[in-house]
Amino acid sequence: MSYPRVALIGLGLIASSMFWAMRRAGLAGDVAGYARSAETRETARRIGLCDTVCDSAAEAVAGADLVVLATPVGVMGQVAAEIAPHLKSGATVIDVGSVKGTVISDVSPHIPAGVHFIPCHPMAGTEHSGPEAGFSTLFDNRWCLIVPPADADEAAVERLESYWHALGANTERMDAEHHDLVCAVVSHIPHLIAYTMVGVADDLRRVSDQEVIKFSAAGFRDFTRIAASDPTMWRDVFLTNKDATIEMLGRFTEELFALQRAIRTGDGEQLHAYFTRTRAIRRGILQAGQDTDKPDFGRAKVER
Amino acid sequence: MSYPRVALIGLGLIASSMFWAMRRAGLAGDVAGYARSAETRETARRIGLCDTVCDSAAEAVAGADLVVLATPVGVMGQVAAEIAPHLKSGATVIDVGSVKGTVISDVSPHIPAGVHFIPCHPMAGTEHSGPEAGFSTLFDNRWCLIVPPADADEAAVERLESYWHALGANTERMDAEHHDLVCAVVSHIPHLIAYTMVGVADDLRRVSDQEVIKFSAAGFRDFTRIAASDPTMWRDVFLTNKDATIEMLGRFTEELFALQRAIRTGDGEQLHAYFTRTRAIRRGILQAGQDTDKPDFGRAKVER
Repeated sequence: MSYPRVALIGLGLIASSMFWAMRRAGLAGDVAGYARSAETRETARRIGLCDTVCDSAAEAVAGADLVVLATPVGVMGQVAAEIAPHLKSGATVIDVGSVKGTVISDVSPHIPAGVHFIPCHPMAGTEHSGPEAGFSTLFDNRWCLIVPPADADEAAVERLESYWHALGANTERMDAEHHDLVCAVVSHIPHLIAYTMVGVADDLRRVSDQEVIKFSAAGFRDFTRIAASDPTMWRDVFLTNKDATIEMLGRFTEELFALQRAIRTGDGEQLHAYFTRTRAIRRGILQAGQDTDKPDFGRAKVER
Repeated sequence: MSYPRVALIGLGLIASSMFWAMRRAGLAGDVAGYARSAETRETARRIGLCDTVCDSAAEAVAGADLVVLATPVGVMGQVAAEIAPHLKSGATVIDVGSVKGTVISDVSPHIPAGVHFIPCHPMAGTEHSGPEAGFSTLFDNRWCLIVPPADADEAAVERLESYWHALGANTERMDAEHHDLVCAVVSHIPHLIAYTMVGVADDLRRVSDQEVIKFSAAGFRDFTRIAASDPTMWRDVFLTNKDATIEMLGRFTEELFALQRAIRTGDGEQLHAYFTRTRAIRRGILQAGQDTDKPDFGRAKVER
């Protein structure tokens, strides 16, 4: 059982992929979309993204059974305030942001009684952004974390889980605080580090830009892919998941300094032991089907 | 014009890929191989890697026109001492190590008069290692840096460049000091950071291993691929390129702390500007043909 009418607020990589995945799944119904930028709305109309592209968020959510907040996390509270008076009783509102604690405290106060707010985080993406970046298989075999509030309506949560399964994703429930810590480790800090490394290379006058680019295949290239992600989205992630980010950065620099010391003192045993240990994690990821040796991003659909 | 007899000392990812690439290119002649481990030699014989697999390095280099040192950089001096008495006059000796300054000072003293020592660094690889990891297209459209000594024989260098071109690579000459700095930026530091990040995740008791693995697609996965590289090779790289590594680590942590401070103080403008700047580098890499949007590692061969 799905949602007859869906509203997508924000038409970037995630929302557009949700639209194409809904269409692929044959989820019947009507999808209305809204984006703040007129250019984005125009693009959406041109490529057939959404059944209707509306000129206001209020218009898009009118009558919707599912409302998806897919904007950068920094503006979700503002969007929630704007749509609140227009939400249908019994509707489900979700967000798809990468941070949950701040989003919950920003959005929840605006949600009217009789509307279910169930935060979500589909852990999938590419370094591309915008309405043309989406594709129907983005969520296949990826995890969508669901962070239901303590008093959530169980039927509404289960309906939402079925919806994500139909889009290709696996789901897992988690509390907001743990979510923000896990994501700091597996996503936010790796992104910050990749941005930093690319910034250092760019800044370095003794190594030309041309050299950095030509010789990137030696390891640096993987960092640039991550560091090409949407700047607005990531600015908001770091500003809203500040505590977990700063805590994990402390751990990271502590470890990095220990390895730096081993290099300085010539402690080859420590380096070798460290580098051997990290191989095991890679094996675990391959076994869990979250990547493959073939560079296809592990997106192959598995049987459920 | 190529080399009638080639000796590969060390039979890992690079040497085995060189063998398959020579065979693909129809480079006639005889290739002898040697590896210190009996198990590796056995594997090489089983999979048909090299025309002859020898039980000593001395035997492998006897009569060779090109000798390739493809061991971890930490043992290259020792290997050079071992093979020196057996080198044919007029032969070319190359290494394929990731560090040049230390290798040159370790290997050069052992090279007899009348033998050309021309250090090389094919900047290509995968996270896999060992004799079975090689494949014929590894060097296609990748850069091989050539670091000829000041008194190098120009004809010998040009012959070597033609050889690398036949294997699919582009070549560029560079001096040893600049090589080690460039590689610290585009390769060594990214690897150290990836190892560190994966180590932090593995260590973190509040986030289970299972969670790190399940949710890796959110950015962390790219780090684990890099951090699965051969521990011995990388230990030696850091121990032998100590100065450039430590200098670049200093730059990296300086930048990281600046971004951490921006997060702590809520300076969204600084973060957004930084993240926007790093996107341009990625565009440059795509334009230079060193990666593609399609996740095929950018290995497609371009016309020369």
